[in-house]
Amino acid sequence: MTAGGTISICDVQNRRLEKGFKLTRVGVTGVKKPIRIKRNGNIELICETLGCDIDVFVDLPSDQKGSHLSRNLEIIREIVDDSVREPVSGVEDLAIAICRELLKRHEYASVGEAHISANYFKESRTPDGKETLEFYRLMGGALARRNGELTKTIGVEVTGMTACPCAMESIRSSLMEKLGEELMDVPIISHNQRNICTLMLTLPENITIEANDLIDLVEDSFSSPTYEILKRSDEAAVVVNAHKNPKFVEDVVRDVLTRLLLRYPDLPDDTSVVVRSESEESIHKHNAFAERITTLGELRL
Amino acid sequence: MTAGGTISICDVQNRRLEKGFKLTRVGVTGVKKPIRIKRNGNIELICETLGCDIDVFVDLPSDQKGSHLSRNLEIIREIVDDSVREPVSGVEDLAIAICRELLKRHEYASVGEAHISANYFKESRTPDGKETLEFYRLMGGALARRNGELTKTIGVEVTGMTACPCAMESIRSSLMEKLGEELMDVPIISHNQRNICTLMLTLPENITIEANDLIDLVEDSFSSPTYEILKRSDEAAVVVNAHKNPKFVEDVVRDVLTRLLLRYPDLPDDTSVVVRSESEESIHKHNAFAERITTLGELRL
Amino acid sequence: MTAGGTISICDVQNRRLEKGFKLTRVGVTGVKKPIRIKRNGNIELICETLGCDIDVFVDLPSDQKGSHLSRNLEIIREIVDDSVREPVSGVEDLAIAICRELLKRHEYASVGEAHISANYFKESRTPDGKETLEFYRLMGGALARRNGELTKTIGVEVTGMTACPCAMESIRSSLMEKLGEELMDVPIISHNQRNICTLMLTLPENITIEANDLIDLVEDSFSSPTYEILKRSDEAAVVVNAHKNPKFVEDVVRDVLTRLLLRYPDLPDDTSVVVRSESEESIHKHNAFAERITTLGELRL
Amino acid sequence: MTAGGTISICDVQNRRLEKGFKLTRVGVTGVKKPIRIKRNGNIELICETLGCDIDVFVDLPSDQKGSHLSRNLEIIREIVDDSVREPVSGVEDLAIAICRELLKRHEYASVGEAHISANYFKESRTPDGKETLEFYRLMGGALARRNGELTKTIGVEVTGMTACPCAMESIRSSLMEKLGEELMDVPIISHNQRNICTLMLTLPENITIEANDLIDLVEDSFSSPTYEILKRSDEAAVVVNAHKNPKFVEDVVRDVLTRLLLRYPDLPDDTSVVVRSESEESIHKHNAFAERITTLGELRL
Repeated sequence: MTAGGTISICDVQNRRLEKGFKLTRVGVTGVKKPIRIKRNGNIELICETLGCDIDVFVDLPSDQKGSHLSRNLEIIREIVDDSVREPVSGVEDLAIAICRELLKRHEYASVGEAHISANYFKESRTPDGKETLEFYRLMGGALARRNGELTKTIGVEVTGMTACPCAMESIRSSLMEKLGEELMDVPIISHNQRNICTLMLTLPENITIEANDLIDLVEDSFSSPTYEILKRSDEAAVVVNAHKNPKFVEDVVRDVLTRLLLRYPDLPDDTSVVVRSESEESIHKHNAFAERITTLGELRL
Repeated sequence: MTAGGTISICDVQNRRLEKGFKLTRVGVTGVKKPIRIKRNGNIELICETLGCDIDVFVDLPSDQKGSHLSRNLEIIREIVDDSVREPVSGVEDLAIAICRELLKRHEYASVGEAHISANYFKESRTPDGKETLEFYRLMGGALARRNGELTKTIGVEVTGMTACPCAMESIRSSLMEKLGEELMDVPIISHNQRNICTLMLTLPENITIEANDLIDLVEDSFSSPTYEILKRSDEAAVVVNAHKNPKFVEDVVRDVLTRLLLRYPDLPDDTSVVVRSESEESIHKHNAFAERITTLGELRL
Repeated sequence: MTAGGTISICDVQNRRLEKGFKLTRVGVTGVKKPIRIKRNGNIELICETLGCDIDVFVDLPSDQKGSHLSRNLEIIREIVDDSVREPVSGVEDLAIAICRELLKRHEYASVGEAHISANYFKESRTPDGKETLEFYRLMGGALARRNGELTKTIGVEVTGMTACPCAMESIRSSLMEKLGEELMDVPIISHNQRNICTLMLTLPENITIEANDLIDLVEDSFSSPTYEILKRSDEAAVVVNAHKNPKFVEDVVRDVLTRLLLRYPDLPDDTSVVVRSESEESIHKHNAFAERITTLGELRL
Repeated sequence: MTAGGTISICDVQNRRLEKGFKLTRVGVTGVKKPIRIKRNGNIELICETLGCDIDVFVDLPSDQKGSHLSRNLEIIREIVDDSVREPVSGVEDLAIAICRELLKRHEYASVGEAHISANYFKESRTPDGKETLEFYRLMGGALARRNGELTKTIGVEVTGMTACPCAMESIRSSLMEKLGEELMDVPIISHNQRNICTLMLTLPENITIEANDLIDLVEDSFSSPTYEILKRSDEAAVVVNAHKNPKFVEDVVRDVLTRLLLRYPDLPDDTSVVVRSESEESIHKHNAFAERITTLGELRL
């Protein structure tokens, strides 16, 4: 099967295939690593350690039996060690560094890909102004081609709250029949629930987007953000705000899109955009879901 | 290592240990099987196939190296085949049959244990009387001892809805300051969310409990049950009912306990009871949780 | 906000938007339902109930506020009820029926989409010829356009076993240095592990593919299939077979592709193919992964 | 329902119940927080940030409607903030600090409970001596009673590898019939797979146990530890070692127990011990499982 001596006997991955098929992606998934990123706080630079889940892949030509997976782990190890000495500013920067190395060390590959997700915490303030530390998920990715093309992906997953406009209108309308117009000042009940909203942008390497800005933008698009600590008056304020601002999953997605156009007028037209909102409906056992997959150019038309 | 011939060489599990430790449970987990159960519908007998997850265990004495795990799978296979010919009335009956066989075929064991969980569907009616088919989880278990003792466990996991009494009171009180007493007839907003409530009873083999009754009992203890299909007036009714009936997780657990005592006055005092309620809070990223672990005897004091 | 009377006040979904964005998909996820499918057994027709997870979506034009999600549930309910009276031959057939109704009842939509996944059990035989009942996942989907175009997706997820060729070669080569050539008849150790392989085909509605055939095709592509019950000689045979047949994740994907071309010479060139193999590596805490996304036409070049 | 003015109207939790039931535990689950712990490295003190999942509970007397859940979050917030300034040496220390505060601020409670789990990374060395960074789960807990009693729980979850002794013996015995005794030097194939082993100790507050020691102890009890990066000779060594050291799940549990007694001769007899080993069998779709729940005193008999 191989022509070779001791070395080629062992390098099973390098064996030549005659009627093989090329593969779209070959690699490792679920690699867990602590990485260090730096963020600009109000004055000082904050360095945080995030626990990451990392997937990396290269493509494989049709005539090569296997990809050398241990090289992927060596790359991840080195890049992560570098991040301890010199923290990067986002998980997407790590993904870029990994992708470049993937192409260097897998000489047979034409594409290198890395996806990183991480738990993330950010200071926030309740309606009453109390400080809380809220939980988010960060996603960063990169895809590099042998010809030098490289795109990166920055994403956030944010948990918030939606109150349903439809149930609210049905109830308002039946109450108005009974109680009359003066009801206008009273907030009307509806069902409300946890909503998970995801925003992902894919764009050229040289453009910097702060994950914190994406989180804010998504949080502003819910009926209300949610908070870890809510004493009584804060709790009431969150509930009242959510009911002043009832939203379908469709509304959450569209409001993220609107805010995105306003916030980033200078991002290129070919920036890919994915926005997804899923409500864990309190009145049903299933979820409500809305999604838009598009480019900034299409949205600007 | 063994004295024996061909057979004993291979029966590694039966090897004698000198300084071994006994083990509490040894077995297999995550065995997936379709089983058939029969239920009394209004007139006819309904036979349903449920996809089950099965865990079975025996204990192991200190001087035996291993338990013969393939025997567990043979038992499961036979019992499940039997259920196709002659459907049982609950997953707990299958667990009992499995436990008896565990003790027969693991001659070294003093305890046999089986736990089964299954997706389950039950017809329900919305406030407007429309038929829906709702989703639940059934749990059945059994524990048999060599001395003949046997207990069984019947459990249900039900998804419903809770509306928070605390936020509702804060908001009512601040609205009454502004708008006065006539507000009394208007339902007051609060946060509401999915609640998962689990009820499990462990009791003697000869007592029959219908899982459907347990499901009804739990569903009546939420702020409102939830439904798959809700047209506009039904949706409004569910939301209004939930807000007429605000509940903490604590209230859900206590209301299940109250209904349990009323519904089953004749169950023995040593019936074990676990009731658990978890609300996927719409205003927080974490959950609220309440649990009572007790016996019917204690509850009746 | 609306011009209308009682009805339009309540139909919040139908409100007109001036500067809205269209949405790619709006619908419900995680709907759980029991469905009945029929399969041709050796002689008789077998009707089985499968517990399904269903997601359905339509697109939404930019000028409409919301999609009427309760219609989705009504459609699912009716189609599933029909399947009780007249079982369909695959979950993909249900997905097709759902998609056609989605377009009928969401008059504003141009695309309807349904995805169904289900636990599935199939009789198999161990190397010794003993009958076992093995567990699989079925996936069925459909996408219908207002212009009449419709494609369906048939998929299976199969768990098997891979033994690593690379470790085996390293160890063989070092053993041969010590022990010489006569070792050739002895199976050489390697690491082996669970592998999850997914195969999905997207093709025109009128072509029928048996999920059972796809399962067989994937199972033949592992180092060995896996079985629920393995008595001693069967267990040895599975282990020996797996080591005679060492495979990387890359090999599993390519062998599925090869078998697919041989088994279905008449499927159209534009049939979409996804094959994915993931090994839960016994020597690592992470997984190895390979994937090909392509068309049959590309594979046939 | 309440006698009171504005304040008591809002403190719904404090309402008196006449026929309530006491509750075993009421609290919050799934609170996510970054905490800082310090470890003694070879020379220097290492401070690490771990992403934690925290559950906290108190019991509730029968005459009180609800527990003040926001107090739990305030406690977690303060304790976690303290850990940034002054890192603790283990997650169990945080659990203890939380429990003490739970009893202070829930004046009606007689028990406070906290459970923390965290992703954790530890340097390790492959058989060839190469450095790797391996992934583990830490668990820490505490339970405090109003009478001053307090116990803490320290636990680790470790992923390793098991090779089956039974399949190995069957195959060895059939090979020896064919090939004779000289085979004795050749490692014999078997099935091998990922094994997840959990060790948890519950003991008095004043005794310090290093989680790193528990991890080492568990890792030594597998057929082999597993590693993120394995170049060819290391990979072969791991596979050979695992096959020299075949183990059932039963063996893993017993070997952890043996090492525990040797490593901690001075721990008190009433130290609770849970050891659990689960193998994700490569030849089956289900898992093999063994568990011992005991005390050190019982083990020492």
